[in-house]
Amino acid sequence: MTDQGTNLDPWYDSYADRTAGLSASEVRALFAVASRPEVVSLAGGMPYVSALPRELVMGSIEKVMHDNGAMALQYGSGQGTPAIREHIMEIMAMEGIRGSADNVVVTTGSQQALDLVTRLFINPGDVVLAESPSYVGALGVFRAYQADVVHVAMDDDGLIPESLRETIVALEAAGRPIKFLYTIPNFHNPAGVTLTWARRLEILDICRSHGILVLEDNPYGLLSFDQPAPQAMRSVDDEGVIYLGSFSKTLAPGFRVGWALAPHAIREKLILANESATLSPNSFGQFVITEYLDQTDWKGQIDTFRGLYAERRDAMLAALGEYLPKLSWTKPDGGFFVWVTLPAELDSKAMLPRAVKELVAYTPGTAFYADGQGRQNIRLSFCYPTPDAIRTGIARLATVINGELDLLHTFSGATLTAPAESRPSVSAPPTNIL
Amino acid sequence: MTDQGTNLDPWYDSYADRTAGLSASEVRALFAVASRPEVVSLAGGMPYVSALPRELVMGSIEKVMHDNGAMALQYGSGQGTPAIREHIMEIMAMEGIRGSADNVVVTTGSQQALDLVTRLFINPGDVVLAESPSYVGALGVFRAYQADVVHVAMDDDGLIPESLRETIVALEAAGRPIKFLYTIPNFHNPAGVTLTWARRLEILDICRSHGILVLEDNPYGLLSFDQPAPQAMRSVDDEGVIYLGSFSKTLAPGFRVGWALAPHAIREKLILANESATLSPNSFGQFVITEYLDQTDWKGQIDTFRGLYAERRDAMLAALGEYLPKLSWTKPDGGFFVWVTLPAELDSKAMLPRAVKELVAYTPGTAFYADGQGRQNIRLSFCYPTPDAIRTGIARLATVINGELDLLHTFSGATLTAPAESRPSVSAPPTNIL
Repeated sequence: MTDQGTNLDPWYDSYADRTAGLSASEVRALFAVASRPEVVSLAGGMPYVSALPRELVMGSIEKVMHDNGAMALQYGSGQGTPAIREHIMEIMAMEGIRGSADNVVVTTGSQQALDLVTRLFINPGDVVLAESPSYVGALGVFRAYQADVVHVAMDDDGLIPESLRETIVALEAAGRPIKFLYTIPNFHNPAGVTLTWARRLEILDICRSHGILVLEDNPYGLLSFDQPAPQAMRSVDDEGVIYLGSFSKTLAPGFRVGWALAPHAIREKLILANESATLSPNSFGQFVITEYLDQTDWKGQIDTFRGLYAERRDAMLAALGEYLPKLSWTKPDGGFFVWVTLPAELDSKAMLPRAVKELVAYTPGTAFYADGQGRQNIRLSFCYPTPDAIRTGIARLATVINGELDLLHTFSGATLTAPAESRPSVSAPPTNIL
Repeated sequence: MTDQGTNLDPWYDSYADRTAGLSASEVRALFAVASRPEVVSLAGGMPYVSALPRELVMGSIEKVMHDNGAMALQYGSGQGTPAIREHIMEIMAMEGIRGSADNVVVTTGSQQALDLVTRLFINPGDVVLAESPSYVGALGVFRAYQADVVHVAMDDDGLIPESLRETIVALEAAGRPIKFLYTIPNFHNPAGVTLTWARRLEILDICRSHGILVLEDNPYGLLSFDQPAPQAMRSVDDEGVIYLGSFSKTLAPGFRVGWALAPHAIREKLILANESATLSPNSFGQFVITEYLDQTDWKGQIDTFRGLYAERRDAMLAALGEYLPKLSWTKPDGGFFVWVTLPAELDSKAMLPRAVKELVAYTPGTAFYADGQGRQNIRLSFCYPTPDAIRTGIARLATVINGELDLLHTFSGATLTAPAESRPSVSAPPTNIL
């Protein structure tokens, strides 16, 4: 206990051990600045909901309020409504998944499904395997439950099976309990790569033979650009995979409706955990989404999103090629993100305040590792800004990066001092952890 | 590990220790039956949302979609929107609470606030003090975090300060860490009683002197009948109380919007926990509620609810007096619930299947204790059924109770065998845990 802690917070001594794992992102204060309109933000993962015609949603709402108002305004089942769960099965069938709507649990966004699955499986000190890098919001959940995240290498074809095998064997030799592998096989956040079909099968095999559950997180799977993503890992393994899905990227995040498809025994526990956490997911959102899926051309709307994001991806890759030709980056075939590798002498976290001063924001690679890696990487999002803004943002980024390199070369041999960073603050929106 | 467990669930050995605390309500299967329309349910705690004029909500939705559609459909802040937090301050001012909207955290119903507060404070084995009886959904959360719930006696004036003091002293003598007192001061669920003002002050004093945080849960406070409830405990203690509020009972539960007002240091941690759990509460619900509070006579609507529930309370008390004059029960001055004490020879849990057979449902008292008490009590809800249905339900209940008593007197001296109960199932809605 520090004196400072006692003075500031009379309850300092009362917190649970796990509360020490809750920490604000180090770059949070900076993102509050970065949300000013003059800054081109390539940092957040917000979908471009303005491309969703308002009247499609309004039509669904009107029908719900007319036909089912009292139920939509009432508490619902802790599992989610039967109707939306049937629709969710249809959506997942597009990725090869067959199964029963009885094994779907609707949650407050798929983030909450992540939270509940972690709650069910993780004792303090248990190991979670995750790609290197991995989704910052998942790392936050794992930390909140005191898991020990061990990263597994990936390349342009996604998670590397041989690295997975070696990591598991080493952990087992050390007697460490590995609870699950957390993976984003499609259009990875933040890496932008997609796991090949052959590797999916191999990884499932490895996990099966070691008794390790697979947590397949797939928020972007339907947002492919040039060719569809391979079928879901869950499509060939219904006992070893918990699949997480979401309406946040294919429709809108504002309703907070996501889901888990789980093996039957786990799904029973997920429902109980869901009820304990929130009683039930919001009925209103579920009814509106059900109506939307019933009465609109929702697949056509997803095509609209795909075209829009593909155009932005193209704008970003072209601008990177033009302004930063010496850097390397991934070429995503869907989703929201490009993962850029900086010259070895740069530090993405130290450079961020300079970037914001130049009116461009990105997410430093360090956010996506549980172990301090990532200083040589940045995540760029192309989902929200227009193609023109993306081009402007990359040009500004090039100014920053080239300026840093110039400085380094001028004072060759010297280490650049990292600038003072702003203190963490919780006033910024959480979009920096998407 | 049992063989059965292994056979049914391949992941049986993988669950976290806390998962053992997740258990389905024993009466869940029965409630699935009880939700049939021919059954008068006096069991659930669902508000009567049909009394909310549809056009009031629809008007708010239309305005939101017209003015702020893109924001309402987008991710939001993990703390909740500034606008709804300002409104929440106005609502709490009606109960004497002054403070800053900066210390409000919007959650997915106040149930989630309960979950997050428990997450922040409870290590396995820590003690939570709660009224005897207490809210079943809170007991479930405490169990899920492996807290040890210790009940404190209450009477018609609410929690008894002297019992609280004695309990604390005994626990402290035993070296047990007491993290917080969970209390529902107004129109208690399930007891239906209200804590007097004098006792509020005394209880705050006791908790302050022992360094125990107070978790004041107040979903029903504005639903008073004959006179307003005393001011909130939080109104006189802003460092020792976390106050939980909800729109579920004064507007509609289907949006899942509740809140916590917490001391500043705790509120920072609550926001981080909220982001970790769900990224942000649902924007759409927050925007609609904000518009509803801006443009409708929401206080008048609460008066409508108060009148409606008062009439149902009257119907229930009158029917109890007429059909079951020899029993005793509480006389709530607000909220949803009456707490009935049965003759000592009856068992509320064993009797429930017979009641459902007679087409009336209630919640057995055992649901509201962490320690197996409650067989002599039942909770009756007057919130949802019409006054006529309430009268019919109580008449049926009297048939069941009198039938049980007749049987007992006929076979005087013998113990009635409890009927076989249905197995727990997770197919029923969670309204039985409200």
